[in-house]
Amino acid sequence: MSEPFITWQARFERLRANKLFEACVIAIILVSALLIGAKTYEEQTSRFEQALYYFDWAVTLFFLVEILIRLAAERSIKDFFKNGWNVFDTVIVVASLIPLDDSEMVLLARLLRVFRVLRLVSLIPELRILLAALIKSIPRMGYVALLMFIIFYIYAALGSFLFHEVDPFLWDNISVAMLTLFRIATFEDWTDVMYATQELYAWSWIYYLTFIFLTAFIFLNMMIGIVLDVMQKESVQMEIENGTGEAGELHALRRDVRALSEQITRLEEGLYRDR
Amino acid sequence: MSEPFITWQARFERLRANKLFEACVIAIILVSALLIGAKTYEEQTSRFEQALYYFDWAVTLFFLVEILIRLAAERSIKDFFKNGWNVFDTVIVVASLIPLDDSEMVLLARLLRVFRVLRLVSLIPELRILLAALIKSIPRMGYVALLMFIIFYIYAALGSFLFHEVDPFLWDNISVAMLTLFRIATFEDWTDVMYATQELYAWSWIYYLTFIFLTAFIFLNMMIGIVLDVMQKESVQMEIENGTGEAGELHALRRDVRALSEQITRLEEGLYRDR
Amino acid sequence: MSEPFITWQARFERLRANKLFEACVIAIILVSALLIGAKTYEEQTSRFEQALYYFDWAVTLFFLVEILIRLAAERSIKDFFKNGWNVFDTVIVVASLIPLDDSEMVLLARLLRVFRVLRLVSLIPELRILLAALIKSIPRMGYVALLMFIIFYIYAALGSFLFHEVDPFLWDNISVAMLTLFRIATFEDWTDVMYATQELYAWSWIYYLTFIFLTAFIFLNMMIGIVLDVMQKESVQMEIENGTGEAGELHALRRDVRALSEQITRLEEGLYRDR
Amino acid sequence: MSEPFITWQARFERLRANKLFEACVIAIILVSALLIGAKTYEEQTSRFEQALYYFDWAVTLFFLVEILIRLAAERSIKDFFKNGWNVFDTVIVVASLIPLDDSEMVLLARLLRVFRVLRLVSLIPELRILLAALIKSIPRMGYVALLMFIIFYIYAALGSFLFHEVDPFLWDNISVAMLTLFRIATFEDWTDVMYATQELYAWSWIYYLTFIFLTAFIFLNMMIGIVLDVMQKESVQMEIENGTGEAGELHALRRDVRALSEQITRLEEGLYRDR
Repeated sequence: MSEPFITWQARFERLRANKLFEACVIAIILVSALLIGAKTYEEQTSRFEQALYYFDWAVTLFFLVEILIRLAAERSIKDFFKNGWNVFDTVIVVASLIPLDDSEMVLLARLLRVFRVLRLVSLIPELRILLAALIKSIPRMGYVALLMFIIFYIYAALGSFLFHEVDPFLWDNISVAMLTLFRIATFEDWTDVMYATQELYAWSWIYYLTFIFLTAFIFLNMMIGIVLDVMQKESVQMEIENGTGEAGELHALRRDVRALSEQITRLEEGLYRDR
Repeated sequence: MSEPFITWQARFERLRANKLFEACVIAIILVSALLIGAKTYEEQTSRFEQALYYFDWAVTLFFLVEILIRLAAERSIKDFFKNGWNVFDTVIVVASLIPLDDSEMVLLARLLRVFRVLRLVSLIPELRILLAALIKSIPRMGYVALLMFIIFYIYAALGSFLFHEVDPFLWDNISVAMLTLFRIATFEDWTDVMYATQELYAWSWIYYLTFIFLTAFIFLNMMIGIVLDVMQKESVQMEIENGTGEAGELHALRRDVRALSEQITRLEEGLYRDR
Repeated sequence: MSEPFITWQARFERLRANKLFEACVIAIILVSALLIGAKTYEEQTSRFEQALYYFDWAVTLFFLVEILIRLAAERSIKDFFKNGWNVFDTVIVVASLIPLDDSEMVLLARLLRVFRVLRLVSLIPELRILLAALIKSIPRMGYVALLMFIIFYIYAALGSFLFHEVDPFLWDNISVAMLTLFRIATFEDWTDVMYATQELYAWSWIYYLTFIFLTAFIFLNMMIGIVLDVMQKESVQMEIENGTGEAGELHALRRDVRALSEQITRLEEGLYRDR
Repeated sequence: MSEPFITWQARFERLRANKLFEACVIAIILVSALLIGAKTYEEQTSRFEQALYYFDWAVTLFFLVEILIRLAAERSIKDFFKNGWNVFDTVIVVASLIPLDDSEMVLLARLLRVFRVLRLVSLIPELRILLAALIKSIPRMGYVALLMFIIFYIYAALGSFLFHEVDPFLWDNISVAMLTLFRIATFEDWTDVMYATQELYAWSWIYYLTFIFLTAFIFLNMMIGIVLDVMQKESVQMEIENGTGEAGELHALRRDVRALSEQITRLEEGLYRDR
């Protein structure tokens, strides 16, 4: 790589690390996103919006240049695309470059412009950490989801067999019944559903109460469990790294005790040597 | 037990432990369950479904053979049925073998087919662990449920005495009032209930607010408490076993300190012996 | 106290400690409570209920005798009533002795009978522990309630000033507005309230969203905080007492280290004495 | 500062620290606040209210005098206003001094009177601690809010493009769609919204369910995470300061081990010196 190129790269790195510049870029992305939202179907004549539009393009260009520099700095294109965030950045920047404005595909163009908000995630390190923590808890979430699915499925089967005649809209088949059960799990007008079936089956409150208890209990139980577990491991990890907190203190303590042991060994050897 | 039998058993064990095979079986159970749900009341003519039907039977047969082999490997039938999961597996496999298709008991046959989903729990070790944790917290949950019942019962008695004339459908007797209170505890259109009684008793908001505060407070308080308590004990147990985390470090530290004590004792004895 | 009296007391203590007897008494209280609920306004002719009625009286008498014995065993009546649970037991037993059946005060009699369920709390030690934990967290809850009250109060003042003309039923004055805000905090048809005010004040969604965020955030934040704090202290206390868990291990570890220090001191003294 | 002034200041400090006086002032503020609420639009003729009104003025004067004394006790006015709570106190006291009663600006006067409730926060140390803890968790909350905003924004964009024709009131543009999504996130009549769109797009339940899962999962995940994290750090801090709890024990343990090390060093040196 040539000297000037490295200088350029360093300058970009410095600019990107600049807190004020970061806040500025985040503000631009957010404001432009909000404006698309607020004025979706109105003419955009005001000067401020025009200025913001040009600024938005400038930022997009800035990101394009940044990606190209990061790409050039890598040893090979293959290495660059091994990092998921690089792929993510490239796709979003390239997608926002496609010129669809003022054409018949205005809707698609708008949707693509919307996805630019996702650049915030790859831009802000804190969001990347949050997302990484979320992704880490997905495998365990999968098993909880599976258990919930089994409960929903069995209750839906029972519900569609028992309450089918009461209200076909809610209990026609298992898939519709599962949607109804999800509604009940969110407490959304669940008494209306119950009062309707209670006219035919007076004891049907047992069905609803057991379902609500089971889902609420399992959901709360496991959500809290997973969150706490993931977090505890992370905080212990962090404490050890920083040398603060209980885990850090324990680590230092073990080192102290080991040093003590070596000191006594030295003393022992010294005594025997002298004799 | 004869040699060939053990070979068969080992082969089955290996097949069952195979991650790909496990994922395959789970997928079949889930897909067949989803298809029952989606197409409950429509003709099933497509070739794919027919194929899946045969595959489902093959899996059922596989489980039957597996249970028979596990049963034969056990010393006595009594030992086999001492393990709750074995009983559970046997009941579900046997129930799904009963030939009720194309008869008048189609509904019951469908329900039995639905319960096959439960095989997932005994199949996936992670779900068994989740379930074991849930079952472990049931005794403590029982006491919380009892306390909640007492609160519900007293409020229901007060409600049925006070608001009986306002709306007999909601407050006719204690049992109906308890159902209404459960509805209020889930925030389901609770203001409609309150506004109705407030017309007669302007101060009845006190009744509703104290009830909501009590139940929400106790429920949250105890749910979180139980979950945290059960989980904390488990994680400490696991940390000690793995030797990781704070509890594991502490354990190792105590071993270190004990070794240190022995070292000094040795030094002491050596000194006295010399003199 | 005479010999035979002590024997009687011991017998009662043994009977009360009997797990089967405890379960039996709990079952009777629960079943009789459930029957009052289910049959509030129907004739009670069945033999089983009659039998249960007599059994309930027997239990009440048993409790009366038990309280009298406990009272007699105490040094003075004043000492007996210093314990809150004793006062609680006495009030409930005496109240359920008042003969109001078949008179005009049937309703009050029924209410008094309902309060017998509270005997469960003083009867079951686990419920007493749960209640004690709840009561312990009340002082801190009070401050959270005060902070919530301040937020509710300011929003209610703003709401009643701004939205008074929109719907006097919901926003007539500060006290009514606080009730409406509590409804919004429970998400009960809050959009109906918002859509009504948005017709006059398009920006009123800011009012509702900030309120929901503030209350949800503060409530969750503090509830979890308080529960965790109270529980953590208790579990650490318990661990130290049992000598298990991290706190227990730490305690043992410090003892080990202190023993080590004494050992070295002894060694040092031994060495100096010899010379 | 002159002698008499310091005496005055000390007297005020003692009066303020008096628990009974504090409870009295809190009660006055709360009662006067509740009375404004209850009687917003009725004549205030009762003698008790008149008395309370005068008492309220007396308290306001007391606070004014207190602030003036605190201000005089400070070295410079600049130092005084560096403390946020001082500024807060001054603004509220000065605002409640503005004489707007019996004029046309009655409404504004009432609002200003309402804000007097905020004096409770600066008055009660426990509330100040609670508020400080809340403020500490705002930066991390900001990132969670940003992530939630991104999810809301993308779903709102999709929603306004897809469901625009179904119900313009709910899905007209991105900003309205975001409000609708917030409603769905609070489970407020969300099935009505879904059933309406399902008539045109049968598969639209996927949109709603994924949105609910994402927001509920992220929200719960992060709220619990943040609360636990902030609290854990605080409790560890407190434990170290008090020397109690695990962190305190660990700290003491390290000191013990260090003392042990010094003891052995001394022993070693003693042995070598002798030879």
